[in-house]
Amino acid sequence: MAYYSDLRQFIDALEEKGKLVRFKRELIKETEIPSLFWLQYRGLPEAEWKSFLFENVIDAKGRHYPNILLGGQAPSREILALGLMCEPGELNQKWCDAVLSPIEPEIVRSGPVHEVIIIGEQLDSSGLEQLAFPGEVPGFGGIVRTTTQVITKDLETNIRNVGTYTGHFIGRNLISLALGHQHHGWSNLRKCREKGIQMQVAIVVGATPNIGMVGSAPVPYEVDELAIAGGLAGEPVKLVKCQTVDLEVPATAEIVIEGEVSNNYELPEGAFGDYPGYVYEVEGNYRPALEVSCITHRKDPIFVANIIGYPPNESHILSAAAREAELYRHLKYGCYVPGILDVAFPYSGGGRNFCVVQIRKAAPWDPWQVLNAVAGYDPGLAKLAIVVDEDIDPRDPDAVNWALSFSMQPHRDVRIITHRVPGLDPSAYPPGVSVPERRFPSPSGASAMLIDATRKWAYMPAGLPKKEYMEQAIRIWQEEGLSPLSLKNPWHGYHLGHWTEENEEAANLTVAAEHMKLGESRRQGARKVSHLFRDTRKGGER
Amino acid sequence: MAYYSDLRQFIDALEEKGKLVRFKRELIKETEIPSLFWLQYRGLPEAEWKSFLFENVIDAKGRHYPNILLGGQAPSREILALGLMCEPGELNQKWCDAVLSPIEPEIVRSGPVHEVIIIGEQLDSSGLEQLAFPGEVPGFGGIVRTTTQVITKDLETNIRNVGTYTGHFIGRNLISLALGHQHHGWSNLRKCREKGIQMQVAIVVGATPNIGMVGSAPVPYEVDELAIAGGLAGEPVKLVKCQTVDLEVPATAEIVIEGEVSNNYELPEGAFGDYPGYVYEVEGNYRPALEVSCITHRKDPIFVANIIGYPPNESHILSAAAREAELYRHLKYGCYVPGILDVAFPYSGGGRNFCVVQIRKAAPWDPWQVLNAVAGYDPGLAKLAIVVDEDIDPRDPDAVNWALSFSMQPHRDVRIITHRVPGLDPSAYPPGVSVPERRFPSPSGASAMLIDATRKWAYMPAGLPKKEYMEQAIRIWQEEGLSPLSLKNPWHGYHLGHWTEENEEAANLTVAAEHMKLGESRRQGARKVSHLFRDTRKGGER
Repeated sequence: MAYYSDLRQFIDALEEKGKLVRFKRELIKETEIPSLFWLQYRGLPEAEWKSFLFENVIDAKGRHYPNILLGGQAPSREILALGLMCEPGELNQKWCDAVLSPIEPEIVRSGPVHEVIIIGEQLDSSGLEQLAFPGEVPGFGGIVRTTTQVITKDLETNIRNVGTYTGHFIGRNLISLALGHQHHGWSNLRKCREKGIQMQVAIVVGATPNIGMVGSAPVPYEVDELAIAGGLAGEPVKLVKCQTVDLEVPATAEIVIEGEVSNNYELPEGAFGDYPGYVYEVEGNYRPALEVSCITHRKDPIFVANIIGYPPNESHILSAAAREAELYRHLKYGCYVPGILDVAFPYSGGGRNFCVVQIRKAAPWDPWQVLNAVAGYDPGLAKLAIVVDEDIDPRDPDAVNWALSFSMQPHRDVRIITHRVPGLDPSAYPPGVSVPERRFPSPSGASAMLIDATRKWAYMPAGLPKKEYMEQAIRIWQEEGLSPLSLKNPWHGYHLGHWTEENEEAANLTVAAEHMKLGESRRQGARKVSHLFRDTRKGGER
Repeated sequence: MAYYSDLRQFIDALEEKGKLVRFKRELIKETEIPSLFWLQYRGLPEAEWKSFLFENVIDAKGRHYPNILLGGQAPSREILALGLMCEPGELNQKWCDAVLSPIEPEIVRSGPVHEVIIIGEQLDSSGLEQLAFPGEVPGFGGIVRTTTQVITKDLETNIRNVGTYTGHFIGRNLISLALGHQHHGWSNLRKCREKGIQMQVAIVVGATPNIGMVGSAPVPYEVDELAIAGGLAGEPVKLVKCQTVDLEVPATAEIVIEGEVSNNYELPEGAFGDYPGYVYEVEGNYRPALEVSCITHRKDPIFVANIIGYPPNESHILSAAAREAELYRHLKYGCYVPGILDVAFPYSGGGRNFCVVQIRKAAPWDPWQVLNAVAGYDPGLAKLAIVVDEDIDPRDPDAVNWALSFSMQPHRDVRIITHRVPGLDPSAYPPGVSVPERRFPSPSGASAMLIDATRKWAYMPAGLPKKEYMEQAIRIWQEEGLSPLSLKNPWHGYHLGHWTEENEEAANLTVAAEHMKLGESRRQGARKVSHLFRDTRKGGER
């Protein structure tokens, strides 16, 4: 089956799978539209998260706009997988395969992204203002923006980079581009500035999901993300040349914003929602100024926005999936750690600060190889890194907390490390500190905690009925017409390596109602009372 | 409103509130009955957990029995609160009030618990075997038992103790009583044995919920738990004198088992499910032998069993609530810590190993006073102790993980302590070690981790839309007839102390769609490009 030719084909697929909600009534993009999308994350279980298409958009002043799509990429992990044409459980391996077998993009002569071209006088008089950008955290956020794929090139090698950076709209033809020093886009900018050249940029809005995925994942500097996007799709990404810059963009994207980063001035940042779930304080931050030279778009362009703030929302889901896939690749194909089963960056950690790696442990040092490898992978990732056994669902906080509670001893299984990069983590520095202090709080930076929460030896079975008894109970349950079950793992008991013939015999006698026979065998083992006068200690008295 | 006079009145209240499921079909108590109850914990959300009444009970051999009630006490926190006639949020304070204002029990001449008396020949020929005890983790568990209130007395002071201990049925008139050295019942036993006297015991099955609550909570040795039960009920617990031992028991209980603990022999333990969620390995453990002298019960006695195993099940819910209330009391009325809001022992930690305390922090040292107090309260409790701010729901693992991810720095906010008591935590010692090693693994015992996950300074607002915009979105959501919402906190943004007039102005301009006006003010703040040649570093490259 061919990959989605454009976003609109993906929207059709969403609708077919019952994953699209259409709003036909008039709704305000600064307030009502983002708030409706937030509601699903605060009020519905993950299985019900969907994409929202707004078909009658106005702004707070009553002006009309084209459509807005929220959740056009990864409003849930299930929809992200749909966008990459795989199952959620296949995302990590699909990513590895694409990185290992990229497919170079193909340049084509024309594409629908050039159906409308806005340039010159028209750009200056309306420009970005005519795009259907929504607000994100109304009442707190002081910006409107894209948070989509930004394409730049390396001046020397001409290798493309695709990164997901925020572009704050500062005017009809001016964007404050949130390039950070850790971004490849910044490396490209630096090389340009060293030669006195202004870096060219193309911001892509509304591409297919494979493009969004590569824009969110870390990949080596020398690799063209669009070739990995081709690997994900199983076919080349079709690109067209831009109108005013020497860059290529996906031919079927909804909107492209072209421009050059000024080498003369930079712009102060406003407060906006970011991955930690707080509005981000940016006083003293300055960002490159992108002077827009052209906007191209399809007819009736759909503005696809990525809402960012309190976790979860789409931004966390996408960035978690991208990081999970990449760290999985690193552990499995980079460090050759055996038994890597899954990597999870739970949304509660912003898809970044909390990391759970599930392994099939073969040796006692496996969990620590993983933890050391995670620590060495990125000094700004995984403030909490936890390794769990194969029966622990790394995406289920109850299961992870069960492992922390009964498979881990802090003095033996926890290590705290320093000299970490805090990113936007507000626990690392007080408000108002200087920009360098935010990047690395002196003297030892931020810190992280590595936890081996795997079992250290054989355990007795997990304390639930055997599978056959639970299956029989499910049959009775359904016959009785009780509330529909949504079973969570584990839903039956299972062995964990420690079990004796005596245990088995006792269990068998018990289910056979041979209680007196079992009791008799216990009575045979009676011994004389010993230690009559042991100390009595408090300790959990009842 | 008077308190429930007996369990049957409580069952009526459950039914009235839609919290009771009746099973009228024939079901096997060793396998089907416990498995059905387990299903609700693996397959339904907490709001739907109920009590299950089985009205046609057989055993695996086809013999018929009286009714079994599972979840007769605390199948959910909501039902526990119903049993104590308060709201779930009032449980902690209700407990404190009862401890501070106990009401002494009242001895009455007779009660329904004596409707049927089984003694002598009848006891020896059927005895415990005729009780409707269910299996618990069929296929793994090798015992049947009570895990209900056990009443003993101090030989010198005559003060009653009520503890929830397990009584394994070893024969028709013999019980292996899981009294541990940490239990008050053990202190009473030791005093008896020092004088060569056999301790008298009464096991109570099917009392009202207030009795179960005091049986699960730690209280001082010198306090009669039944007086606290009276405090919870707002009226004295009515007691009748036992038939064959010098003890008093609730007059309306369903079943009472009377007997004496032999000073001559003790019994080996079988494997059974316990709070960590594993079948508990007991090789080498011996327990006091309770020789049953009499069973009394109501007509058609309802056997109320407390199923124990993988968390959550009723045992975790009850013991969590009891520990929460008691630790709340300790912190608030014992240590006078200001600002204690809630204490949670999440079920994933077996209601014991994982502890979250929610406070309204007034001083930077408040969280550490709490953590030190928790550490000093019980060396076997709270392997993970976490303090969170007032906006963090301590029962929501996502909220707690959010606090761990963005309000805590491990090197600054975590302390690991040793010399802890492992209890049944299987991570503390390998299988097969001696009983003393299980009680305290040499040389430094088990360990715990104390974490201050409160914010250390003012933060920017939580990144969700302001309440008014979310409320408007809820109205639109309902008008559109979308899936019913079950809102989780936080469901709107809120301030956390750090916010400027400029932030407020920008947010106001954004919701008013004055994007160009806001952008213009940003443009005014532009500065010349500086630091052209800063280092470029990897760190989360994209």
